[in-house]
Formats: sequence, C-alpha cells, structure tokens
Amino acid sequence: DATDDVPCNIKFVIEGEEETGSANIEKYLKKYKQKFSCDGVIWEFGYVDAKNRPIIGLGMKGLLFVELSVKESIQDAHSSLAVLIKNPAWRLIDAVKTLRDSSGHVLIKDWYKEVTPLSKQDLELIKNEPFDENVFKKEFGIQSFVNNMKGMDAKKALVAGATCNIAGFVSGYIGDGAKTVLPSDALVKIDFRLIPQMDPKKQVTRLKNHLKSKGFGDIKIKIFHGEAAARTNSSDPFVSQVKDAAEKSFGTSILNVSNAGTGPMYSFVDILKSPCISIGSTYMFSKIHSPNEFARVDLLKKTTKCMCLIMENFGKN
Amino acid sequence: DATDDVPCNIKFVIEGEEETGSANIEKYLKKYKQKFSCDGVIWEFGYVDAKNRPIIGLGMKGLLFVELSVKESIQDAHSSLAVLIKNPAWRLIDAVKTLRDSSGHVLIKDWYKEVTPLSKQDLELIKNEPFDENVFKKEFGIQSFVNNMKGMDAKKALVAGATCNIAGFVSGYIGDGAKTVLPSDALVKIDFRLIPQMDPKKQVTRLKNHLKSKGFGDIKIKIFHGEAAARTNSSDPFVSQVKDAAEKSFGTSILNVSNAGTGPMYSFVDILKSPCISIGSTYMFSKIHSPNEFARVDLLKKTTKCMCLIMENFGKN
Repeated sequence: DATDDVPCNIKFVIEGEEETGSANIEKYLKKYKQKFSCDGVIWEFGYVDAKNRPIIGLGMKGLLFVELSVKESIQDAHSSLAVLIKNPAWRLIDAVKTLRDSSGHVLIKDWYKEVTPLSKQDLELIKNEPFDENVFKKEFGIQSFVNNMKGMDAKKALVAGATCNIAGFVSGYIGDGAKTVLPSDALVKIDFRLIPQMDPKKQVTRLKNHLKSKGFGDIKIKIFHGEAAARTNSSDPFVSQVKDAAEKSFGTSILNVSNAGTGPMYSFVDILKSPCISIGSTYMFSKIHSPNEFARVDLLKKTTKCMCLIMENFGKN
Repeated sequence: DATDDVPCNIKFVIEGEEETGSANIEKYLKKYKQKFSCDGVIWEFGYVDAKNRPIIGLGMKGLLFVELSVKESIQDAHSSLAVLIKNPAWRLIDAVKTLRDSSGHVLIKDWYKEVTPLSKQDLELIKNEPFDENVFKKEFGIQSFVNNMKGMDAKKALVAGATCNIAGFVSGYIGDGAKTVLPSDALVKIDFRLIPQMDPKKQVTRLKNHLKSKGFGDIKIKIFHGEAAARTNSSDPFVSQVKDAAEKSFGTSILNVSNAGTGPMYSFVDILKSPCISIGSTYMFSKIHSPNEFARVDLLKKTTKCMCLIMENFGKN
C-alpha cells in the first residue's frame, strides 16, 4: 500500500564488519554520535520462525573470547621423558578445570557480581516464547540438555545463561594412529557469553586474577573480543510500536528478551542512549552462511510493510 | 684383532618393524621358539653417551597407547547454544582429570597393584648411573622437573616411573583467531608407560572399569599398543660377561636398569626365557631420525670388538 511522506526522520547505518566482530562500530558511533542521535534503533537482525512468526529481539548477549596457552619446553620430547618433563596439556587442563564446575557455573571470583535476576516482566515474556525441545534435540542428535534442563529452565538459559565454552583445544599429535610424544605446548580457545551488567573489561581482569590466584600466573592470555550484552526494556513505548506494526503485517509476533548470540547491540544502546530492537525478514531455515542461502519474497514484502507501519506508529506518538 | 672360530652358536634376528610398534615379533618368536632358543640375547639398541661410555641396558618399559573420544552431537553448533548442548571437550577433560593426580600418580584402581619396589641392587646401579640434570634441562629449555624432582628421585623416575601422558588432544576450532563454535566431538591420545609386573591387558580392563565407575562409560576407547616392560636381573652371569667385554673394549661401561622408553624386549625375555641385554654403537647425539643422522666409525670398531669379547666370555663359561 502506498503511504504519504515519511512521518519521521530516518537514518541508515550499513555495517560490513558484523561477521568479523564489528571491531570499528563503537569507535564510529562515538565519532558521529551527534549525527546518529535518535529515539529508537531498528536492527534487521531479526528473523521469522518456522511457523512464520516474526521474532522481535530486545537483546543480545555479550561475548569475551580468549586464548590461553602454556609453553613448557622449547621442543616436543619423546614421551618416555614424561617422567621428568611437565606436560603442558595436563597443566592447561588443570587450569581450565578451575574456571567452571561440572554444571557449567563459572567459578571465577565475582563473575556474576553485577548480574541482576530476570524481571517478572521478562519471565512472563520467556514463558510465552515458543521453544520446541524435541525439534531442537533432533536437529543436533542429542538426548538431553546441559544439567538435564527442561522447559522453562532451558528457555531461561537461552535468554539469560552465561557460559564458559571451549571453542577449541589443541596439544601434541592429533593425526591418525599413535605417536609417543610429549608436547611442548598446549592451547585452548574459550568463549564466555556475557549477560547484562557483565563488563567485558572487568571480566578480563577477574579471569587474570583468577588464574594468578590458582597458581597459573604463567599461562599466556590473549584477548580476541570483548563485547557487552544489551537489552531493551520490554515496557519501552518503542517496543509496543514495533509489536503493533509486526502484528498488523504478519498477523502475529513474538517478543524475545535476548537472543542467545552476540552482536554489537550494546554499542547503539550505550552510545546513542536509545532503545534498540531487532526485527527482519530472514527465514529461520534459510541456510544462513551455507550454499543455496535464500530470502523469501513473501517475508520481504511483509517486513517492508512492517517497517512502514513502525514509522507510521512512531510518527503518531 | 683376529680371533679363532666362533666359540658359541650365534643366531640373528633382524626385525624391520620396531619403529611401527613391532606388531609381529611376538607371534614370530612364538612360532619359531625352538629355532631361537638360546642362553642370552644381545640387542643392538644400546648406545654410547656424550662421554663415550657404553650404556648396557638391562630393561625397557612397557607401553599402553589409547585414544579416548567423546561425541556429543551430530554437528558442530554455534557456541551461543552452549547454554543447552553439552560440550564434549569439557566432558573429556572431566574424564581425563580422573586418571591421575597433579603429581602424575595414576588414580586408576589397582594400577600399581602388582608392582614391586626397586631392589637394593637396582638402587645401587641407579645411584651409579650418571645423569646431568643441567644439560638435560638446558636441552629442553625447562626450569624444573615434574614434582620438582632432583638427583636420585629423577634418576629413579627415568628407570622405574610409570606415566599417564597426553600425547595429543584436539577439539573444535584450532586455527588462528576466534571462532565461536561448540564442537561436536573431542579426542585425546594417551600413552601410559608401564613398569615390570604391569600386564597391558589387565591395565586396559582397569582403565575401562575406571571410566565406567566414574560415569564415563560412554567414552569410546581405542587401543593402539600394549607392550609389557622387561628387565634382566643385574646379577645374571650373562650381565657380567657383557660388562667385562664392554670395559675391555671401551675402557668403561654403565649398567642401566631400564631405559625410559619402550621396545619389544619383553617378547624375547618372556618367550625365549633368556636374559636380554642391549649394547650398541649408536652415539647419543647422532641425530637419530633427523637429517644428517650419522654413525661414528670409532664406536663401530669398539662395538665390534666388544661383541667378539662377549662371545669369547660366553664360550669360556
């Protein structure tokens, strides 16, 4: 449907670095803070689920990606010398075992210090979010979740769970068959998903202090990314304007308190001091990043209409 | 110097599989047990140290090489899902952490059950073996040994220490930089050095029972090698005959209770019921398995003379 003139000012930010960690968006937004000042941010990150319901995202988790490494000797040794030369793989395992307990709870001092519990409002939204455990389990071929979580607990973890995940671990000989070698070094890549109020810089300091206090002060730490979590309050008027537009256009909508993943939402919320909401036309099973990735024309049309309605709603209020 | 006719019978075994684990030597010796029956075995595995002293080896450690692996899901996942999907790297770390304590002592039930302490005689030999800690540490660029061992403790470990060594560990993304991935599987290669009385087959059963009893019964175990340790008693008359020959030829000799490494010595000792001793012409720093590997002509000549003298001694007694 044709509309009249645009009922409010629109500014566009097109960023090409999201897949490589959005290293410059924060600097950029700070530099052009005045130019980008606004009352609300729409991020096209949003998606449409298997049942054609648009997911309105109110938040993203933060991320801290680090690499820990131990170098014990200047060369690999014959493993008969393991009676004398320390094995860096054992040492790294000892170190990472101190980071979390077997339920996944991070054991670093003050890791959760600033975290506040989910609000009643957020809990209500989480309860209303659809999540088909069986479809999910089948997709990954798994029998049960971490800590045997089920139902509301699993949904809460997706929205508000912090993690300490081993993304990679390597030491010694990893080819076929046997090689009796004592490796000279070992390396682990760990990503910590952060939740609101966790400051990546503070968490780095806490991680470093933790390793030192546990006797692992010699372990080399390399920091790759630190990004804070962001959440827009679901009672912000902007949220109901978007929700109304989505429902008019798609016939339905789902509010998601926070995506389980990470993106540079915090930079917008923190620097522009504006609510940030994600809604978009991406179909959940559109083979993202895979061969034959596709966009659905019907969803593009519905999202276009939704965007117009958001502007209309915004202009009215 | 020319000698008369050979004063005793000599049989030769030339084996070409030592570097790939000597998979067939046991079968072969069993099949031709009668043909190879003898009163003593000389193995050219022996070497000559940096100070031109021939090392007469009386033993070898055994070896058990295994691979443990965990497969959690049918595909790698985005690490945002670590809130729900179990990480096989954490699980494998939890499992291997139960195998030994931080001092290197193996925690598997009955692992050391049949092991007998070193005899007074062996302790005396170990005391007399030279071992330059500083040269060793400098070679590998290390500051201290496992458990801060020094002197006699370090020498005892080389001769009679059992180990549980991580030869390789791999899971997830191990390239440069960051990748927020939750691996679907994790794999560790472990070599256990075995000492006398440890039966590789029994130890495999103990390892399997251990994992089961600790709740890791689902972990896949692959066995690559199992070889028992062997030691010839230093008071065997054959030892003094070899020692006498070595000292006449080289001017000196060192008795080594057991090499820290593994070779198929047990097959000979167990099947032929003969003492087995290693002595040879290999120079310690002859770049074994490296480019420009070499043999020293002076040592070849001395070893030839030594072999003749061994035969002479043997013929006389």
